[in-house]
Amino acid sequence: MSETFRLSRQVEFNHCDPAGMVFYPRYFEMISATIERFLSDAIGYGWSSMGVAEKGMGTPMGQIEVRFANPSYLGEWLDLDLTLARLGTASATFDIRCSSKDEARFDCRTTIIHAHTGGGKSAPWPPEARARMVAFQPPATAQQKESDV
Amino acid sequence: MSETFRLSRQVEFNHCDPAGMVFYPRYFEMISATIERFLSDAIGYGWSSMGVAEKGMGTPMGQIEVRFANPSYLGEWLDLDLTLARLGTASATFDIRCSSKDEARFDCRTTIIHAHTGGGKSAPWPPEARARMVAFQPPATAQQKESDV
Amino acid sequence: MSETFRLSRQVEFNHCDPAGMVFYPRYFEMISATIERFLSDAIGYGWSSMGVAEKGMGTPMGQIEVRFANPSYLGEWLDLDLTLARLGTASATFDIRCSSKDEARFDCRTTIIHAHTGGGKSAPWPPEARARMVAFQPPATAQQKESDV
Amino acid sequence: MSETFRLSRQVEFNHCDPAGMVFYPRYFEMISATIERFLSDAIGYGWSSMGVAEKGMGTPMGQIEVRFANPSYLGEWLDLDLTLARLGTASATFDIRCSSKDEARFDCRTTIIHAHTGGGKSAPWPPEARARMVAFQPPATAQQKESDV
Repeated sequence: MSETFRLSRQVEFNHCDPAGMVFYPRYFEMISATIERFLSDAIGYGWSSMGVAEKGMGTPMGQIEVRFANPSYLGEWLDLDLTLARLGTASATFDIRCSSKDEARFDCRTTIIHAHTGGGKSAPWPPEARARMVAFQPPATAQQKESDV
Repeated sequence: MSETFRLSRQVEFNHCDPAGMVFYPRYFEMISATIERFLSDAIGYGWSSMGVAEKGMGTPMGQIEVRFANPSYLGEWLDLDLTLARLGTASATFDIRCSSKDEARFDCRTTIIHAHTGGGKSAPWPPEARARMVAFQPPATAQQKESDV
Repeated sequence: MSETFRLSRQVEFNHCDPAGMVFYPRYFEMISATIERFLSDAIGYGWSSMGVAEKGMGTPMGQIEVRFANPSYLGEWLDLDLTLARLGTASATFDIRCSSKDEARFDCRTTIIHAHTGGGKSAPWPPEARARMVAFQPPATAQQKESDV
Repeated sequence: MSETFRLSRQVEFNHCDPAGMVFYPRYFEMISATIERFLSDAIGYGWSSMGVAEKGMGTPMGQIEVRFANPSYLGEWLDLDLTLARLGTASATFDIRCSSKDEARFDCRTTIIHAHTGGGKSAPWPPEARARMVAFQPPATAQQKESDV
């Protein structure tokens, strides 16, 4: 059984454009917040404890792809559901589905790298963080052979 | 011969995160600005003339993919170079490459839809806008057969 | 007895600058969100019901002043407490105090105008909205004579 | 004779809200950019050279006040004109007037502190930076006696 991490957020004026819909760069702030809270609250290895601001470790973005389904409007509640598509030695690929009352808004797949913020060299996930992340892999994916970054 | 549309922008404090690098959601604001100025300044069919705020036409994002190469730092100048990868009846796919002094920062491919902002129904590009966009297609791409959205 | 409206928000990576502190323009997004939720959730007259995106009514900012006390850091919870300093015929002046575990972060005083979004002409608050707002005035303030915008 | 430092910026989709006007927190990003470029380009003592991201010096905001005059719309060019209202030992107070084709948009007065980013203790401006800043003081202001932070 795999787990899903959910962040729920209400669409604010701040997120909306002159067409009255969420301006898509704001979705990337929500995607970032979903990964931020997942690492901190579900895994116990967030950006503060990595020391991202003190030239410790961080999780720079490797790549990201988003397909948009329907627009979102002021006041709606959005659910961002994160699962782990693939866990590498020093990387993690997430699937994040955003919906509102079960209507799809976007699907995102993104890969982050666990790396030194000074220099950018990648480094293996700490064992405890790794062990906790495995629970968020769907069964089929978990059986895939893992590979390096 | 195909043309490239360039937007150059200096990295501001506003764009940078606690690791001292550009926070990637800010790149999506720059991508949006590149498409905004391309449509307005190169094509003469920008969001103001579409009437995006008056329930006229707009260009909602269909999908977007970005692969990140190297981080960007405070004060650097970034060049965002846009070419047209594919021109559909009511859509356009852009390649946007971001670099600083010829060092790659990211590569983006994104598809926008020409659609009514109220309701979201797609509609063909106006002929004048379409005619101007063709110049930004690379030769090989331009020979491909066009298809609908 | 007067009431206070509270919005609590956790500091995200998204809010922080290269010095590792909240970048002050992000505080203005939080101030906006506090007023947004106050009008919608406490007063029942939010920006959606005003029709701000449909050339109905809105609440443009007249003036705003913020004095900063202490910096805020990643992961901290901030409490934004709003009271009504003055209620005009077509305006409202709020005091918003931001703190974290009782340590002051900033004090804000700001005046919004109830006005038509097309044209900008001010208009009196609807009676129901006005009646609900009065509860958020401190006793001393409530005794002051009200005046027009 | 005193000097004025000008930053000109075009209103982008990114800045605009569902009412089709600039959302005021975006103005604070422009104000920050004006001070950023002033310190870097006019004074030669910008946030990079202060080492704001390396626990060196920075310029946290002490207080800021903005009075809004008229809304700004998509595509307009804004001029932000900065003068120095007061130069303290370890602080500077700026007047920033924003206009578009000579129509007022807002007036801002803001005070920054020259301080260590780790700890927050203030420190005198370096003499070279101070000497260059004096040129941006209006004559009447320059005759005022300076005082400490």
